[in-house]
Amino acid sequence: MRLLIENAYVIPVAGDQFQGDIAVGDGRIIHLGPAGSVPEAFTPDETLDATGMAATPGLVNSHTHAAMTLFRGYADDLPLMEWLGEKIWPVEAVLTGEDIYRGSLLAGLEMLKSGTTTFADQYFEMDQVARAVEEIGLRASLCRGLIGIAPHADQALAESRDFIRNWHGAANGRITAMLGPHAPYTCPPSYLEKVLAAADELGVGLHIHLSETRTEIEQIQTEYGCSPIELMEKVNLFERPVLAAHCVHLSEADMEILAEKRVGVAHNPQSNMKLGSGIAPVARMLAAGITVGIGTDGAASNNDLNMVEEMRTAALLQKVGLENPTVLPAGQVLEMATVGGAKALGLAEQIGTLEVGKRADIVLWNLNQAHLCPLHNVQAHLVYSAGRADADTVIVDGRILMRGRRVLTVDEETILREAGCSARALVTRASSA
Amino acid sequence: MRLLIENAYVIPVAGDQFQGDIAVGDGRIIHLGPAGSVPEAFTPDETLDATGMAATPGLVNSHTHAAMTLFRGYADDLPLMEWLGEKIWPVEAVLTGEDIYRGSLLAGLEMLKSGTTTFADQYFEMDQVARAVEEIGLRASLCRGLIGIAPHADQALAESRDFIRNWHGAANGRITAMLGPHAPYTCPPSYLEKVLAAADELGVGLHIHLSETRTEIEQIQTEYGCSPIELMEKVNLFERPVLAAHCVHLSEADMEILAEKRVGVAHNPQSNMKLGSGIAPVARMLAAGITVGIGTDGAASNNDLNMVEEMRTAALLQKVGLENPTVLPAGQVLEMATVGGAKALGLAEQIGTLEVGKRADIVLWNLNQAHLCPLHNVQAHLVYSAGRADADTVIVDGRILMRGRRVLTVDEETILREAGCSARALVTRASSA
Repeated sequence: MRLLIENAYVIPVAGDQFQGDIAVGDGRIIHLGPAGSVPEAFTPDETLDATGMAATPGLVNSHTHAAMTLFRGYADDLPLMEWLGEKIWPVEAVLTGEDIYRGSLLAGLEMLKSGTTTFADQYFEMDQVARAVEEIGLRASLCRGLIGIAPHADQALAESRDFIRNWHGAANGRITAMLGPHAPYTCPPSYLEKVLAAADELGVGLHIHLSETRTEIEQIQTEYGCSPIELMEKVNLFERPVLAAHCVHLSEADMEILAEKRVGVAHNPQSNMKLGSGIAPVARMLAAGITVGIGTDGAASNNDLNMVEEMRTAALLQKVGLENPTVLPAGQVLEMATVGGAKALGLAEQIGTLEVGKRADIVLWNLNQAHLCPLHNVQAHLVYSAGRADADTVIVDGRILMRGRRVLTVDEETILREAGCSARALVTRASSA
Repeated sequence: MRLLIENAYVIPVAGDQFQGDIAVGDGRIIHLGPAGSVPEAFTPDETLDATGMAATPGLVNSHTHAAMTLFRGYADDLPLMEWLGEKIWPVEAVLTGEDIYRGSLLAGLEMLKSGTTTFADQYFEMDQVARAVEEIGLRASLCRGLIGIAPHADQALAESRDFIRNWHGAANGRITAMLGPHAPYTCPPSYLEKVLAAADELGVGLHIHLSETRTEIEQIQTEYGCSPIELMEKVNLFERPVLAAHCVHLSEADMEILAEKRVGVAHNPQSNMKLGSGIAPVARMLAAGITVGIGTDGAASNNDLNMVEEMRTAALLQKVGLENPTVLPAGQVLEMATVGGAKALGLAEQIGTLEVGKRADIVLWNLNQAHLCPLHNVQAHLVYSAGRADADTVIVDGRILMRGRRVLTVDEETILREAGCSARALVTRASSA
């Protein structure tokens, strides 16, 4: 399918903004340039008039737990351990595969409707998540979460191997897989060794939570006499591609390790704020040359999967944290949310910018709205004023998944109804368990 | 006009949530209760089916500069004095009355479309702002900003008097007026004395910026040997009703004064973040019994006038600032954004809650959306997941201003076009000045 996008404000992220056209063929960007510059030989099957719209790379949600949309608003404003122990874990304990499928569809729908085209997920029953991704048409990097200190830790690793064999590279390459050791405090070095052996054998990277809370830092310090980042270096985790979620509490030495080992960091500003975890040193990480993407974390601690707002929050949080309005300017934040995430997920050769040869993951944003008027600066508007509902058209792998806010691949009403049923039933099951 | 709202999730803010109906007559709420409880004698002219919607009091934007929407995205990510001196002041210097009218219409449209029904504004050419408010149908507390150290300071005060005489109580009481001494560092005590005399004479309150930046605190400390709040107490400002914007940097003594003098504070989290001003001690202010509302500040430093997101930011910013997820729970934030703002503006007898006898300022929020599913907790969804585009229907003073997101009082396209023209012309005039 050949697609022509005409007359957009194109923000390629790689290179300067211009007003013009984008041609897509065979799932890739085959041309972009000023209005009328598309070669005459290109005969589109479909043409999208993008007058008054911005075209950007699709947003990359670099850390989430999609199915946790089922717990959105179920428990808020509680101390962390009470929230987890009395609220979240009991409902997670009664989740079925079908629940996870429905929750993942809901998450995918929400992300699609807010301009996210790729997400990195860590959860369980990942076949169900992959099934949802395939159906909606998004791109995703998926991993089964591994708790080394839990019963059945080896079984979970075996499930991971199966999942990776079955799904890595599936859906025309839209689905990639990783190994998902949960965190240093749940995966002791002896278990991590097994995980790393599997990673080497299967040729995949790792997605892990690192240095999220002060409690974690203290616990690892007490147990191992070093920081979580230093511990991960010692066990040679960073010799493979690693996507590290959070990285809130970091020493200078930690940052040197992250930079040297080319670790990709997923910054989750709203989750870090809502759980009271702290302010990640994003400006310092970027200055140190660390790759930083942006993520939403799960909907239980956010409570939405809205990368547009997450961009804004990332910028504002650094500015207030450092009491400096110049840090994390709009352009840098947009880079984090697109190519930064793509790099962190190991997908930068395929996505993250609008460039000839890359897969066509493109969002058209409707600028003709009160909160985006006047049009002094399109890029600043996307970061500081836009909202999820401004995503008008979403294209993934050259296929139009949403047009004029109408989702073309799945039935919205069915997803909402079934997710609602699952959520109600879960709460009933958990309270009678 | 008699209006019946049926089958909403009603969040009255005063009292518990229930599912039911609201009857409006003569601009007031005349009944609210469970489905079917409206007296049979009530014969509505119009009935709104609010199935799947939440009904809340209209949001109160307790501090903004509406016409600054014209500068949205014009200058971002700059050091404060460079931003003001090289960017904002030059364009403000060439603003005409017509520009201010157009910018205020744009702001009003944006606020209406995001569920804000009342706003507190401080700017100049306030007749133009009032004209825009009257036309759109919103409620507003307006004041002309007064810079005591500027040339024509006395003339500005004279304009304030005229404005108050002409507009205080206008538009069926929807427009009220205040005096607007800008800030302690721009209004020396000698000037404030004149402003206070006028306030007493005209029987109105005051809207002022207080303790916004560390620079202000240092400057007032150097010049007067006390804090801005203490200085204002010394000049007897707080003997009248005062709406104090920002209050970011406060001592314990400052907070005692604010509580004792019943000062209303307008907290502007996104502006404080974007300008790198700091984190206001909101949780401590609330614990001290201080009235706190929420505001957006002007669109040059935000960059939108979106109270839905401002609620979320207020909650998240306190949680991360105190590293405590339990502070500012959803219910408390919703109170701040409605009745808190109403109190701070001196309008709590008329608006801020859904109660029999209050003016009917009501927003219906469409809950049937991916990011608000499942429906574990409507109130948490409004604070942590909703967006401006979820405002479906907006009623002010018993009149429907927006229905199904269609604005009924003004023409959206005209407002966007004319604001765009004004903004472009301003930049041209400023650069050739």
